[in-house]
Amino acid sequence: MMTGKNHIGFDLSAEGITTYKTFNPLLNIENEPIYTEASNNEVDRAVALATTAFKEFRTIEASKKAAFLDAIADEILALDDVLVQVYCSETGLPEGRAKGERGRTIGQLRAFAELVREGSWVEAAIDTAQPERTPAPKVDIRKMSIPLGPIVVFGASNFPLAYSTAGGDTAAALAAGCPVIVKSHPMHAGTGELVASAIVNAALKTGMPNGVFSNLNSSGIEVGVQLVKHPGVKGVGFTGSIRGGRALFDLASQREEPIPVFAEMGSVNPVVALPSALRDKGNEWAKQYAGSITLGAGQFCTNPGLIFGIKSTTLDNFIKTLGEEIEQIAPLCMLHPTIHNNYEKGKSILSSQGGVTIAASYEGTVSANYGSQKVITVNGVNFLKNPTLHKEVFGPFSVVVRCADMEELNTIISKLEGQLTGTILGDNTELESSHTLIETLQGRVGRIIFNGVPTGVEVCPSMQHGGPYPASTDSRFGAVGIHSIKRWVRPLSYQNWPDHSLPKELKNSNPLKISRLVNGKSTKDAIQ
Amino acid sequence: MMTGKNHIGFDLSAEGITTYKTFNPLLNIENEPIYTEASNNEVDRAVALATTAFKEFRTIEASKKAAFLDAIADEILALDDVLVQVYCSETGLPEGRAKGERGRTIGQLRAFAELVREGSWVEAAIDTAQPERTPAPKVDIRKMSIPLGPIVVFGASNFPLAYSTAGGDTAAALAAGCPVIVKSHPMHAGTGELVASAIVNAALKTGMPNGVFSNLNSSGIEVGVQLVKHPGVKGVGFTGSIRGGRALFDLASQREEPIPVFAEMGSVNPVVALPSALRDKGNEWAKQYAGSITLGAGQFCTNPGLIFGIKSTTLDNFIKTLGEEIEQIAPLCMLHPTIHNNYEKGKSILSSQGGVTIAASYEGTVSANYGSQKVITVNGVNFLKNPTLHKEVFGPFSVVVRCADMEELNTIISKLEGQLTGTILGDNTELESSHTLIETLQGRVGRIIFNGVPTGVEVCPSMQHGGPYPASTDSRFGAVGIHSIKRWVRPLSYQNWPDHSLPKELKNSNPLKISRLVNGKSTKDAIQ
Repeated sequence: MMTGKNHIGFDLSAEGITTYKTFNPLLNIENEPIYTEASNNEVDRAVALATTAFKEFRTIEASKKAAFLDAIADEILALDDVLVQVYCSETGLPEGRAKGERGRTIGQLRAFAELVREGSWVEAAIDTAQPERTPAPKVDIRKMSIPLGPIVVFGASNFPLAYSTAGGDTAAALAAGCPVIVKSHPMHAGTGELVASAIVNAALKTGMPNGVFSNLNSSGIEVGVQLVKHPGVKGVGFTGSIRGGRALFDLASQREEPIPVFAEMGSVNPVVALPSALRDKGNEWAKQYAGSITLGAGQFCTNPGLIFGIKSTTLDNFIKTLGEEIEQIAPLCMLHPTIHNNYEKGKSILSSQGGVTIAASYEGTVSANYGSQKVITVNGVNFLKNPTLHKEVFGPFSVVVRCADMEELNTIISKLEGQLTGTILGDNTELESSHTLIETLQGRVGRIIFNGVPTGVEVCPSMQHGGPYPASTDSRFGAVGIHSIKRWVRPLSYQNWPDHSLPKELKNSNPLKISRLVNGKSTKDAIQ
Repeated sequence: MMTGKNHIGFDLSAEGITTYKTFNPLLNIENEPIYTEASNNEVDRAVALATTAFKEFRTIEASKKAAFLDAIADEILALDDVLVQVYCSETGLPEGRAKGERGRTIGQLRAFAELVREGSWVEAAIDTAQPERTPAPKVDIRKMSIPLGPIVVFGASNFPLAYSTAGGDTAAALAAGCPVIVKSHPMHAGTGELVASAIVNAALKTGMPNGVFSNLNSSGIEVGVQLVKHPGVKGVGFTGSIRGGRALFDLASQREEPIPVFAEMGSVNPVVALPSALRDKGNEWAKQYAGSITLGAGQFCTNPGLIFGIKSTTLDNFIKTLGEEIEQIAPLCMLHPTIHNNYEKGKSILSSQGGVTIAASYEGTVSANYGSQKVITVNGVNFLKNPTLHKEVFGPFSVVVRCADMEELNTIISKLEGQLTGTILGDNTELESSHTLIETLQGRVGRIIFNGVPTGVEVCPSMQHGGPYPASTDSRFGAVGIHSIKRWVRPLSYQNWPDHSLPKELKNSNPLKISRLVNGKSTKDAIQ
């Protein structure tokens, strides 16, 4: 049933000459279906269709757009076990994870459907006319968010559902009224094709314009580069490596018309274990962190890759327990041989840096593509002077830094690159007395956690998934939750516009009953 | 009383070796004071001070920040006639304009003070914990906007008060909690120094940290380049030319850590005169547009530089009346000989393009630096094929395009570069029947106006002053009104954070009584 073709709007197409297969890391063999990379011509057609679709889609009734998003969720569920099987065969991840991620994807789509149906997300602001005002009369002005245009979404290797074809970026862009062109991730092209077919079915069933969605196969960088440089594309969403995200950002910035790129990239998610945490709950945290570091073979962007403590016997005990715990955990299969190879390479590079000692290393025999966990330690001086030790190793790996004192710890935190998250472990009293440290950490992260683990990104309005560069290319936006829609919209003001020609969101009668800022006050009332 | 020195935090400093003077275009002579360009060392000191100040300023009490903004307004007013005189001597603009712009500046500062005092601008979102949730418990997460860090503001030549030293960009950044370093505009360095002294006085009187504001003199591009490349700088606000804005955007994008640049750049502000407008009110619109084109010697970014009509006798009549009206208006002094020279050059280049005819040209004798208004016409075919005719000529100049029919007009609009504004003149019936045209125009602009002129930018929440590139470098933000604060903030989430350590905006008791999104509902209530 897998065609291996591209979805160019509602059509399946395979004009290209480059083909590739996906890989089953568990069985260590290629999967059978053959995927055909999109040709230049197919990329152009997808963008042209999206541009045409945008004319209709940008102002389509909110209820219809919501029905489309809900229908995508329904169609994904209808793929049932087929999707789960293909997902597992392309990732080495277990069924439970596939179903969990599917649930998250469905939840995101429904949350955006609800957002769109409710309608207040357009942030309508109205200032009514004051013709009698002196010295100059005030004209009527009304503002709301409108969609940017066709958006390109790059699928993420580690979230084939929740951050790929119909994932958070796609759901947010469609909710905004932007057609989406997905650059399918080559490692899970089959999962991508299935989900793409669900989106296309949903679009057909709910009467969406042809071109509202396309899915382009690609094994290398060419399709992505062509898309980001295409004048018809107006924004880019990306989840992946710093190198990849930065390359797209650079391409987009160098265009004649620069376009926004929201890239969620690398993060080592520093954790600071204050002395009280190690004294009171050292063993408990060691166990929890052994789980967090190895969760999903460490293939999460919020994986805790860096743990700081102050040199002490309690820290030594923590490291010892963490090591013992982590060595007992059975290694897991990683997403792809490439990812596994990069993991082994990164692990080996960091482990061989000056001053590094091995705290834990799983040394049992593992099958091909399984990522053996490792924890290394280093002192603050060596960490500070060696940027290699700051780098993310994507996998079940973590660095514990023994700092000489709080001052050194503060210095290190202040020099860290931007991060998705930062975590403080400690008691309330120590939290209060660590004011400077916390202020510094806040300045480097998008989310700050107290007594917890950074893995597990709740999808809710208050979640910020993003952070200062290089955690993301624009810390002013996030990739998770309903507010991520803001990446794909811009404000448009109507001045002195007749009520009957205004969009519903801005009409005097407020027919959608949305919340609006009217003459400076938030209200759902009609304007008399 | 003018020192000609830089304000490096609270200190006056003039270590540099490059000096310059401002110019009185009315008298056609240099003004006396000598300004010393900031040295590399002074730039570094300003950024270092701003970085230190940020640690305190970023979390300063809202009431204190508001008092600072109000105090800046008071101190500017206290400069009284001295400021007005210096302003006029450096711009050639009349006293009335100086006072009007001062009023706008004061109004902006007070509006941001009010915004900060009220507090809801931080867009607090709270999702409370659900420890019993299955399969996984939900942790408590709370999000709010926090400031980015030190912001560099480039003064605008045409708004020495409202978009320079203490203008919209500065007011928005300070309100957000970001220290500001102004790259003073060389054409009004005296006005800049006076306003900078007002800001410093206000900072001292309200107990702000040293470095919360600096003002750097500069005659060339070096100071600006050094600032934008400086790792301590976290954002840039700019109002000016496409060339200048794009250069800063490129520099900022190429940094190791890219930073956001909001540049409000060029715009020709297309106006579409539908047949009904020319039939019913052609003379009236001709008179109004003669005024709008020449207002302030055409030195507004919203100046109507492009007017479209369908070839007809009514269009011919409109052009004739526009020409007669515009030739009767006395030319005004422009801001600076350089601006005047550029105007004359641009006017001459566009007037000599193929197919251009002169509709109106003020041919009387004028004093040095006065900008003689001119209107040219061209047909749609010649306009379409010649990008030179799409370019902004900064001054009292406009191009009237005679389109063959609505189809050609639609094509032209769809190919226009991004604009700050677009205007439709017509009656209600024709507005309804011009649906495609309006949709197309909306896609190219930040503000769309019906039956009015684009000049005159009301400062209110519903105003969008920005637009698709090259009107601005990021259409998702604007430079006017309280929402422009969003350029300088980013969201930060707190996870499982103890109530007593949370910022006031996120505490259960909601002590600031701000509006917050709590578990998906907007409320000012405390959390029980």
